[in-house]
Amino acid sequence: MTQDKSRGWFRGGARDTTQLDLAHGTPVPRGAADGLPAEAPAGEAYHDTVQVDRSVFAAERVPAPAVSSGDRAPDPLGDTGSVDVSAIRLRTVEAHLDEILGAVPQPDPIELAVLDAQGLLCAELVVSSRALPAFDQAGLDGYAVRSADVAAATVEAPVELAVVGQSLAGSGEPAAIAEGLAQQVAVGAMMPDGADVVVPAAWTDQGAARVGVYAALPAGSYVRRTGDDVAPGDTAVQVGTPIGPAQISRLAAVGRERVSVRPRPRVSVLCAGAELVDIGTPPGPGQVVDVNSYALAAAARDAGAEAYRAGILPGDPRRLVDLLESQLLRSDVVLIAGTFANGGVDVLQEALHALGGMSFTQVAMHPGPLHAFGRLGPADVPVICVPGEPVAALVAFEVFVRPAIRLMLGKRQLFRRTVQAVSATQLLSPLGYRQYLHGQVMRHPDGGYVVEPIGDGDQAMLARMARANCLIVVDEDVTEVSAGGLVTVMPMLLGG
Amino acid sequence: MTQDKSRGWFRGGARDTTQLDLAHGTPVPRGAADGLPAEAPAGEAYHDTVQVDRSVFAAERVPAPAVSSGDRAPDPLGDTGSVDVSAIRLRTVEAHLDEILGAVPQPDPIELAVLDAQGLLCAELVVSSRALPAFDQAGLDGYAVRSADVAAATVEAPVELAVVGQSLAGSGEPAAIAEGLAQQVAVGAMMPDGADVVVPAAWTDQGAARVGVYAALPAGSYVRRTGDDVAPGDTAVQVGTPIGPAQISRLAAVGRERVSVRPRPRVSVLCAGAELVDIGTPPGPGQVVDVNSYALAAAARDAGAEAYRAGILPGDPRRLVDLLESQLLRSDVVLIAGTFANGGVDVLQEALHALGGMSFTQVAMHPGPLHAFGRLGPADVPVICVPGEPVAALVAFEVFVRPAIRLMLGKRQLFRRTVQAVSATQLLSPLGYRQYLHGQVMRHPDGGYVVEPIGDGDQAMLARMARANCLIVVDEDVTEVSAGGLVTVMPMLLGG
Repeated sequence: MTQDKSRGWFRGGARDTTQLDLAHGTPVPRGAADGLPAEAPAGEAYHDTVQVDRSVFAAERVPAPAVSSGDRAPDPLGDTGSVDVSAIRLRTVEAHLDEILGAVPQPDPIELAVLDAQGLLCAELVVSSRALPAFDQAGLDGYAVRSADVAAATVEAPVELAVVGQSLAGSGEPAAIAEGLAQQVAVGAMMPDGADVVVPAAWTDQGAARVGVYAALPAGSYVRRTGDDVAPGDTAVQVGTPIGPAQISRLAAVGRERVSVRPRPRVSVLCAGAELVDIGTPPGPGQVVDVNSYALAAAARDAGAEAYRAGILPGDPRRLVDLLESQLLRSDVVLIAGTFANGGVDVLQEALHALGGMSFTQVAMHPGPLHAFGRLGPADVPVICVPGEPVAALVAFEVFVRPAIRLMLGKRQLFRRTVQAVSATQLLSPLGYRQYLHGQVMRHPDGGYVVEPIGDGDQAMLARMARANCLIVVDEDVTEVSAGGLVTVMPMLLGG
Repeated sequence: MTQDKSRGWFRGGARDTTQLDLAHGTPVPRGAADGLPAEAPAGEAYHDTVQVDRSVFAAERVPAPAVSSGDRAPDPLGDTGSVDVSAIRLRTVEAHLDEILGAVPQPDPIELAVLDAQGLLCAELVVSSRALPAFDQAGLDGYAVRSADVAAATVEAPVELAVVGQSLAGSGEPAAIAEGLAQQVAVGAMMPDGADVVVPAAWTDQGAARVGVYAALPAGSYVRRTGDDVAPGDTAVQVGTPIGPAQISRLAAVGRERVSVRPRPRVSVLCAGAELVDIGTPPGPGQVVDVNSYALAAAARDAGAEAYRAGILPGDPRRLVDLLESQLLRSDVVLIAGTFANGGVDVLQEALHALGGMSFTQVAMHPGPLHAFGRLGPADVPVICVPGEPVAALVAFEVFVRPAIRLMLGKRQLFRRTVQAVSATQLLSPLGYRQYLHGQVMRHPDGGYVVEPIGDGDQAMLARMARANCLIVVDEDVTEVSAGGLVTVMPMLLGG
């Protein structure tokens, strides 16, 4: 693994995730909107992942939570469970993304058979040692002739030439013609010495022993010359080019069976939670089926990674450390959703701390503020922790993990393209938090896009997510987008 | 295999491939433009795949070739080699596409593990037999209480409740609270009977034995109720939905380990040509490395197929038939580039005729007019033949094969989206032919798109193709697009 700190993603380029939106449809407990005490802050108190500082009630009653860029915030509480809050920092989405992208290593290039390289970025400058075509060849079926011989040919006064044999594609027999002669040639066949033009069969009387030519052609017509396509020393594929069918054509043409590419990062996907059971196990009372390891493995593959679903982490501290260690040995990234924070000590947090420097972080975003990042194990493998709530986990994947995977793949465009769309409804967002909301974006008949958040406070989360084709993004400093106003939308179409 | 003739692709929907463009940069033999005789037709004579009817010279001198919709045209010649021209029909791109799409069967659905189903279309209606959540649970960390008990709570006058134990996530222990009591709950934990609200920890003094609550909350606040997300009998995934991370979430959540999907069609890719050698073999005099089987296998994968590169067909008639028969047994589609037409009998054409009804066709398109289609073997497997010239082969793939693969996958959108772009240069196109030209399309700073054909007549084909990000399409009835005029562009971005 090599690491290049001077990569260009810091500067320039559209980091299009920097704008966002909270819709109308933020998860609000039924009836809560009407009944909250006047003292309660109007904005952030309404979210499941509520971030309420005790000082709001006890002292200043400032509704906006303090947001810093990586510094410690004054004792944020909320749904952090038993996590040691003194170790938790409140930071912006940008600051957390910067930490991850700045620390992700670039896997060394690997050599793959050309067809296996499809979709990856070329990691070498491929130079042709051959000329393509390798010989002067006929560009179509017809007669190889000397252009001087047919210079006077017309339909009214065809030029007659004697036909001396035939040149077939694939034949390596050298041949030659002299003045007054023609040779029948098939497309792709070697041109006989002396001939400098191919007369298309249709422009002749198609004779076998003698041929009448109806038209004059300038020298070189319908001849593919040696090196026309690729000369020896020409670049066949540049470093950094995505390898698609056209690049595979060129690699095959210059005789390359294997090519050096940026590999797919191996991402190990794990999840933590005392309540989790595997998909095949009927959940007992209080238990929930593990959704995240499936969804995140799918999302990681979709982003270009080679993703392995390593499944549910054991709650036993010893086995937990063993499993994490073995994943750190075989992965380029370890992705963990959820925690064992459950009214007591979080064994996951303790295990991660035992394996290296892991920083737990409150990120000023909705949904899902609890995140962590570190590089652990002997190989300093990046470990990314995302919230355990399935919708928050997939949003966190979009915001932090997908760009990291694309960076490891060598992609120039780390972030999804965003579009500005007209919001069909009013959207409210708490000050200081970046809000991501699932929505449906569609083209407006008059041009541009219209977006609508999916569902409302009563509609639960997986159901909403499955119908969405975009994330609506409301920036930290925006508290309201009126119906008809413009919002930033990140389309996430997945085929179909 | 089942076949449904009543599919909807015939009608409606954007068949966006119906418009196209020939650029400035059509392959013109060097110097040919200046030197052609006055009698030569001005348009189509300039292409490598020239289609010139003898009648142009001998009789009517009509420059536009006759184009019909599947009927026989009067003896078209050109680069058809030794193919029996009486069996060849000249037809439009639309007519050929209609024949292929109308004859492609739909493979039967298969069952796959949910992660292997990624990217495919769901072939069953998945209904949940479970409620999600399966039990009332805490929406965040805090205290489960009776809303009536805290109705008067304020920061100035907190309500004090006795704390009776703790409910952890994953615990199935039933619990209950009575009036005046509270239970500590972790996010995801079962709600105790009697409690109807969770007070966020931050809205309390976080006491252990007794807790002071600072705010009243309406019943239901921060409680995820049984069935909120999915009720038993709810649809988890609809038939025809593309399976992405969000659908995999829902399938996992309802406990589905496997799901029925439309399978990837198995496409066997073969190529024919006496001049071809495999990629690892240094080509001798007159020989050329096989490019098409690699490029077309890559393109077929890119379109969603499970593509197998079966390689170069043998020229020996007996072995040729054997190989074709074995591919027909294991494939949903057989794709063949090139012919053995080479100044003599085409053994490929004979072998295909021996295996069933194969129709050879001249399609009024550039590049590459020679096509064939049939359904062969005991299972009536579709066999699609495309031209052997590598650029023509990939254009034919885009126009005919990719839509067929997408139809087999069950996709609603068979064709690539097209955009209208301003042409940066003048484009010329022969009347009656649909022209496809590789180009580079980019966003215009003032909005919209600008497109430029790549290369000119002197630039060879693989080199051009590798730099293209779109096909420019000029319709049959368009002979000229002036610089600044609008053309139809089919973007073909392949990641990066």
